[in-house]
Amino acid sequence: MSLQLNDIYEPIKDDLAAVEEGLKQVGISDSPWLNELLSYALKGGGKRLRPALAILSAGFYDYNLERVLPLAMSVELMHMATLVHDDTIDNSSVRWGRPTVNKIWGMAKAVLLGDYLFAKSGELTAATENIRCIKLLPQTLMIITNGELAQAASSFKLNQTREHYFFRISCKTAALFVLATESGAVLSQAPEKSIQVIHDYGHSLGVAFQMVDDILDFTATEEEMGKPVGSDLDQGTLTLPAMMLVERYPKDNPVKRLFGGGDKEENITRAIEMVRNSSIIQDCFDIATKYKVRACQDLKLLPDLNAREVLSNLADYIVARRR
Amino acid sequence: MSLQLNDIYEPIKDDLAAVEEGLKQVGISDSPWLNELLSYALKGGGKRLRPALAILSAGFYDYNLERVLPLAMSVELMHMATLVHDDTIDNSSVRWGRPTVNKIWGMAKAVLLGDYLFAKSGELTAATENIRCIKLLPQTLMIITNGELAQAASSFKLNQTREHYFFRISCKTAALFVLATESGAVLSQAPEKSIQVIHDYGHSLGVAFQMVDDILDFTATEEEMGKPVGSDLDQGTLTLPAMMLVERYPKDNPVKRLFGGGDKEENITRAIEMVRNSSIIQDCFDIATKYKVRACQDLKLLPDLNAREVLSNLADYIVARRR
Repeated sequence: MSLQLNDIYEPIKDDLAAVEEGLKQVGISDSPWLNELLSYALKGGGKRLRPALAILSAGFYDYNLERVLPLAMSVELMHMATLVHDDTIDNSSVRWGRPTVNKIWGMAKAVLLGDYLFAKSGELTAATENIRCIKLLPQTLMIITNGELAQAASSFKLNQTREHYFFRISCKTAALFVLATESGAVLSQAPEKSIQVIHDYGHSLGVAFQMVDDILDFTATEEEMGKPVGSDLDQGTLTLPAMMLVERYPKDNPVKRLFGGGDKEENITRAIEMVRNSSIIQDCFDIATKYKVRACQDLKLLPDLNAREVLSNLADYIVARRR
Repeated sequence: MSLQLNDIYEPIKDDLAAVEEGLKQVGISDSPWLNELLSYALKGGGKRLRPALAILSAGFYDYNLERVLPLAMSVELMHMATLVHDDTIDNSSVRWGRPTVNKIWGMAKAVLLGDYLFAKSGELTAATENIRCIKLLPQTLMIITNGELAQAASSFKLNQTREHYFFRISCKTAALFVLATESGAVLSQAPEKSIQVIHDYGHSLGVAFQMVDDILDFTATEEEMGKPVGSDLDQGTLTLPAMMLVERYPKDNPVKRLFGGGDKEENITRAIEMVRNSSIIQDCFDIATKYKVRACQDLKLLPDLNAREVLSNLADYIVARRR
């Protein structure tokens, strides 16, 4: 791939280093029980996309790292909290190429660690003392939870429309992107119109990001993903590629068999194979790319500063990535 | 018992009715998946102690129901969220005399419902637009989570001191009482000295409350408790009565046997019997009563208003209650 994340991050690398240092400090609490869990969770292999989005989105008007830093940390901790709870709920064993918190320490501690991370995220956002940002955080968590519940309610169900799919990924992924971008813009005292542009960028980019994630669950290797491929099907989550597979091969269909209670391994392997050997991957990429283009189309309305190009590069990276 | 909660609540019954109505509204969201869970959780058999504490604590200076209402709802939702997650972690089947959320809907939905309730609690506190209250909420959740982790780390362990016990109950129960009382006082524009008095009341009362809860787990009936008696021992939680039992009967001790891996039912039954037939209950009550007295000792420094007597009555109720 031509675009390397480190190269894209170059203009904000000092600020991201401050985020990293801040996150490391979060892992040093008075509680020995917590520190072990926190330092493990915080050392994960995340791409720090959401902090980067917060920093970049704050870069168009009155940029102040001290003001943005707690927000950037907060959105990453909120992200981690949701991952820790997701893995617990799904009983997943591997993420980022290593055992999950629930796998090592069990369900109880994973639930509590997630709760602590939610709280820490709330504390950091409160430290911005910006009421609008403060209100956005819990509203976003409500949207995410609602999306997760929708996903749980629809698992192993075939009768789902594209609207269901886009609703779910808007809730579970795009909402957090919007939190990062909108809050960043708000903290930089951006005018309302620019906040809207950055908000829309976050939403469309979040949708594109999740679509690519859903594609990679079919096309990537376990090493690239850092977790087993086909895990969405394993959880009974009908993503867009799976939906297309059901539509295009209504007769002999491994997704139908799987959701009907058929053999997991056999049907997941077959579904991956069929998706890879069809035009589904390209069709999904085309839709993800449309969202990427939509994300960037109004960036030109923002001041012509470095951050604009970086946001655009980040969007390109997100649809081109292999992990 | 001479003191009935309804009689104590009489002076604030309209305000508590507003809380109840507000909580009912929380159960009406756009999401069908959520509404079912929310309306079940919100109809629980709680005593609404924490909203009452918030309302009463706001009653000494500039009282404004509209301002206090979101706080009063917020502390109750935070309480519920922690209960839902606790029951999930403990795999408890019964609370308030009915099946738990995790029992009916399973672990995944219970975790998500708890997350939603945390978020809703955050949204309501944010609605107060009071930065000090806003900061208190996540800090409290961090303390609670830390206490729960301490409890998990110490479960089925005998070598615990009184300090461990008081640390745990301060975290898991008193912190939320303090959130309710301190935030209420802050919202009423109370002077700093009065906020401190109300803060200290909340802390001591919370400790007394949890001690009585721990006693009732030995002395009450399942019907009174709304859940099985002896559930603390069943979870491996060493409460003060159990600690005293270990100290006083070092030779023939069912708690030691239980924590050493012995038969659950037999040893829990025996431990309950031994505690009931000893002076342990009275000794524990004496300590709880000391905390109750300590809670009330400085209330006289507050303005001589109705709320002062109600806070005092509430403290009496808390140590005298049977459920």
